[in-house]
Amino acid sequence: MPTKKKSFGAKPWVYPQPVFLVGTYDAEGKPNVMTAAWGGIVSSDPASLSVSVRPARWTYDAIMKRKAFTISIPDASKMKESDYVGMVSGRRFDKFSLSGFTPVKAEKVDAPYIDECPVVVECTLTQSIELGVHTMMIGAIEDVKVDEAILDATGNFADPEKFSPLAYASGSSTYHTLSEVLGKAFSVGKVFLRK
Amino acid sequence: MPTKKKSFGAKPWVYPQPVFLVGTYDAEGKPNVMTAAWGGIVSSDPASLSVSVRPARWTYDAIMKRKAFTISIPDASKMKESDYVGMVSGRRFDKFSLSGFTPVKAEKVDAPYIDECPVVVECTLTQSIELGVHTMMIGAIEDVKVDEAILDATGNFADPEKFSPLAYASGSSTYHTLSEVLGKAFSVGKVFLRK
Repeated sequence: MPTKKKSFGAKPWVYPQPVFLVGTYDAEGKPNVMTAAWGGIVSSDPASLSVSVRPARWTYDAIMKRKAFTISIPDASKMKESDYVGMVSGRRFDKFSLSGFTPVKAEKVDAPYIDECPVVVECTLTQSIELGVHTMMIGAIEDVKVDEAILDATGNFADPEKFSPLAYASGSSTYHTLSEVLGKAFSVGKVFLRK
Repeated sequence: MPTKKKSFGAKPWVYPQPVFLVGTYDAEGKPNVMTAAWGGIVSSDPASLSVSVRPARWTYDAIMKRKAFTISIPDASKMKESDYVGMVSGRRFDKFSLSGFTPVKAEKVDAPYIDECPVVVECTLTQSIELGVHTMMIGAIEDVKVDEAILDATGNFADPEKFSPLAYASGSSTYHTLSEVLGKAFSVGKVFLRK
């Protein structure tokens, strides 16, 4: 007999979800940032990601006009700031200033990233696809920048425990970070290869 | 002066990523499953998700033919099984049998889910979009099913700590789970509203 499972219907529940801070310049050149959990990597080559934005958002027009955005990945210490920038609109508020986040002009694209985030991703908009209430923005990843403070001795970025990325759980609407390493991918599963 | 950051180029690095176990029936009706970390929610209404699959994968043809797939979300106790089903092809191996996972015919779509996963999502393929080496499959979420054992006393699913979803970190290629709850979304950021 299968395990008893309860149906919840068509819910946007997958686990875990990221906390993407989407950075843009608006029409007047003011830096803005919004929080998004609907997104992820969509291709390895060209390295690309998606983030979904409602057309009513201030960020939507900004991405469409400049064909550029950044994704700053906050660590757990920036949970409150990250939550705040998802609560109010850049139409009315200077969210960088109010949150204390510092905008830095990206190197490869026409958008700002958040200095206080340990990992930032610079993206060029390649497609936008309407999917009901959200529009999915596909971004070609032009560069990933990582704080030197979280690199290892050889200059590599290999230890997410040095970083504590913020994670989101829909359903419960809660923030988390990642546990210590449980195992290595393409490795721990080898035990089944022997069968 | 901005924080010193090192450029790593166009890498598929965002944090965290999910561990999606993509369930399908192949042309002969055999259940198959593969691991995917490239994906996430893409719209709230209709609730939809994306998962990216290379055309060479056995799963690719199966999704295209039946226009259906499931996403089973493993918990940390199924790390080895989840890693294994990403290592070999359903063309040659019966991965359900070899991993010990049990296929259950989904209720709403023509695909199997994994009984041992606490959360499963049943999807109908609505679009497939070629994005370089990967094709992004967009799935309309028809149902989310959750093990009754991880529901709370009122029948709700509100505590991801009861569940320990597996998470992935690219770059380090490591598996993790989520920490305890750090805070509540749309709430902890209110401290900045007072300014």
